[in-house]
Parts: sequence; C-alpha cells; structure tokens
Amino acid sequence: MTIGDSSTLPAWRRDLERALKRNRGDAHSRYFQLASVSADGSPRNRTVVFRGFAPDSHDLLVISDDRAAKHTELLHNSAVAIAWYFSRSREQFRVVGNAVVATCDNDTQRWRQRLWSALSDAAKAQFFWPAPGAPLSSASQSTSSHDQGSHTAAPPDNFTVIAVSPVSVDHLQLTNPQRRFKSHWDGEHWSACEVNP
Amino acid sequence: MTIGDSSTLPAWRRDLERALKRNRGDAHSRYFQLASVSADGSPRNRTVVFRGFAPDSHDLLVISDDRAAKHTELLHNSAVAIAWYFSRSREQFRVVGNAVVATCDNDTQRWRQRLWSALSDAAKAQFFWPAPGAPLSSASQSTSSHDQGSHTAAPPDNFTVIAVSPVSVDHLQLTNPQRRFKSHWDGEHWSACEVNP
Repeated sequence: MTIGDSSTLPAWRRDLERALKRNRGDAHSRYFQLASVSADGSPRNRTVVFRGFAPDSHDLLVISDDRAAKHTELLHNSAVAIAWYFSRSREQFRVVGNAVVATCDNDTQRWRQRLWSALSDAAKAQFFWPAPGAPLSSASQSTSSHDQGSHTAAPPDNFTVIAVSPVSVDHLQLTNPQRRFKSHWDGEHWSACEVNP
Repeated sequence: MTIGDSSTLPAWRRDLERALKRNRGDAHSRYFQLASVSADGSPRNRTVVFRGFAPDSHDLLVISDDRAAKHTELLHNSAVAIAWYFSRSREQFRVVGNAVVATCDNDTQRWRQRLWSALSDAAKAQFFWPAPGAPLSSASQSTSSHDQGSHTAAPPDNFTVIAVSPVSVDHLQLTNPQRRFKSHWDGEHWSACEVNP
C-alpha cells in the first residue's frame, strides 16, 4: 500500500498521529501491548515500544530478537492485536492486523539498519545478551554492562523488525460523551463508522 | 484453589501486590491489557481495569458487559493473556491463564454484587447504554448523562465479572541489571525460576 499526503490519510491514522503528539510528554505513550497466538492456540501478550510507521505504509514497527518467543509465535501465526492506551488524552486504539518479521534474510534490510542505528547503546547491548527466557546463564551477569559488540554499525543477525499491517482499528475516546470509531481495510480502501461506545 | 496467609503466597503474587503498592500514585497502574482469541483464531486485545483478586484464590477480576465482543470471545475460548506494565517501578507482569465469566446465571453472584456496589454511578451507567460496538444509535446520546437505572442496587443482567485464573506468570524487572522470573502452576503448586531477561 502506498500512502499519500496527510490529507488522504485514513481517519484512524490522523487520530493516532494526533494522540502521539498530545501524549508525547508521557514517556510511556509510545509503549503498546502486542498480542499474538502461540502454537497451542492460546494468546500471548507483551508490552513493546512503538518505533514509528514504515515510510511507505501504515505498518507499525517494533523491534525484536529472533531468540524471543514472540518471534517463533509470529512466524507460526502472523495474526496480531495491539491495545494502545493513551493516559493523558484518555483514548484507546485497538488494532487487529498481520505481522511480518523482517530478518537479516529478507528484503527489509533498510528498516533493520535504520532502526538499529536509532537505538541507544543500552538497547543495542541486549541483543548480545544470553538467550532471553532461557534458564539463567552465568554469562548473563554481562547484562548489567554494555557489551562491546553493541557498538557495531550493522545489526546482529538476531535483531529483527516486526511490521504490523493493520486490517481494522477501533478507536475509543473516553471523553464525555464517550465516542468510538471503527475503521476497516477491505484490501483497497479504508472505511470508518462511528459505533456505540 | 485456597490461598493461605501472605507468607505462603507464591512469589509472583507477592511481587504483584508490591508493584500495586509502589505504583498506586499512578492512576493507570490498575489498568492492564487482556488478550483473547476470537472465533476465527486471531487475537484480540483491550485495556481493562483490575478490580482486585477473588477473595479465595489468585484469580484476577475484571468487569464486562455481556453485549461486548470479549464476552462472546471468552465463552468460545477461555484462554487469555494479560500484559501489565507498571511505569513507575518499570516492571511487567505477563499472565497466561483461563477466564471464567460470572454472569447472572451462575454461582458467582457474590462477586458480581460486590463489584457492582463498588462502581461509580458513571461506570454503572454504561451498562444501560445502547449495545457497545453496534452502529451508532440515536439513543446513545444518553451516554453523556447518567442513566437513572444506574442507581439500582442489584447489577443488571448484562453486567458480568471475568475471573482470570493464572497458569503462568512472567515477571520482568527493567532494573539494572534486568531480572526476569517465570512462575508456573502445575495444578497443585506454584514453581518459579529466574531466567535470562
């Protein structure tokens, strides 16, 4: 999907950009919760950091480690659901969509390189730690300090980017009166309607 | 499951109680994200308010409306996943478990009555609004004011309580060094181990 100038953005994207601006003083306004479905069919949920939109689409970008459970889960089942609550403006965006994992093997190198370069050294260092979720390793004492390897210009192979492509967005405003808007992507266009909160 | 005094609580429950205390100055510390799986197998995710633990178990209680989509989803598939991030103490609890929906038809009336009584009039009023998620109803103008019916002492039939019974808890502390603990319920006991963050 190619996006046009701001006047042609779907309503939910304009609303979400506005929420990001209105809540930018809150350091946690760029955190959202990403749910996926594990191999046994039960859901998983975790907090992730929003790393911006892909330059030429409405895809929401987050970073991951290919040793993390969510990486395996998403390769098995790409369906995801985001819950993103903005506490200052008291509004919630719920996104249902599909995730594509950009690894060192596929054609999304430019995202990986760009997002890697933007990371702090402390964030980069985590990709050189022992495998996340594995039994505590003696080597994990290194997690308290920055690893030399974190200063590499190129991302390590285990650094991945997850691009969430939205199919529907449910925007609830906890104003008085409350308002709620549902948007849907039919494969060609976005449509939106207001629904009961 | 019957729980004992605080000295016999599993580690995750003590840690979660401590997080609630340490973050209580943050009005949003009692909000978490609840993921479920819809009938088509894809995940859904939304922000809900923690209403406390059930008196005699580790079940986490939230309220719902039986006209809401999550109610239908949970009756179809009870598997849920909670992501609960505490921004002041910088720690996350991820709970995987099963949800039981307490309606007016089953034997959990005491929870329903207790939680209903604790709600504000504004929160009660929402249960008398038009069906959530349905196309905007002209009647929904009443959402801006409190409905007379909200002052009833007994909960309306559409007021439900969701009790999430945890099976595993993943506790990540974003301290320096980061620490991460996984707890698991085997049907009789909780076990816990520290894992790589």
